Amino acid sequence: MLKAKIFVQLKASVLDPQGKAVTNSLHNLGFGGVVDTRISKYIEILFDSADEAEVRTQVDKICDSLLANPNTETYHYQLEAQE
Amino acid sequence: MLKAKIFVQLKASVLDPQGKAVTNSLHNLGFGGVVDTRISKYIEILFDSADEAEVRTQVDKICDSLLANPNTETYHYQLEAQE
Repeated sequence: MLKAKIFVQLKASVLDPQGKAVTNSLHNLGFGGVVDTRISKYIEILFDSADEAEVRTQVDKICDSLLANPNTETYHYQLEAQE
Repeated sequence: MLKAKIFVQLKASVLDPQGKAVTNSLHNLGFGGVVDTRISKYIEILFDSADEAEVRTQVDKICDSLLANPNTETYHYQLEAQE
């Protein structure tokens, strides 16, 4: 079995309103040293396969078709063997 | 400056309905090899400080008071130096 650890993040050029809201909340809570916050998705998918090349092909398709918005987001991932 | 890379994840014992929905969607899209999906938050916070111990104290407080629900979620993080 292989586990894909996938990060789906807004492109650096895209405003992150949720992150801005968290930064503001943190300033209001007294954490004045916070400069910036970016909020992303982290997704783990477990595959019933040990074939890295095949799983990579599937993860690319899954990210392109379901998990990431190609207009505003980028993704990267690592594969990890599981027992 | 220090960047905190924070993962906020549902406890393993807590059902992840969003992850279940993604697993079902992937099966319907033909990705039959997907066994399980877990969806988490990944948050990067940039601090205007180079004092690791101080930033760790702040990140713990921020996670406990704002980012994570102690009933259902756990968190872990790494710090990374930034120019």
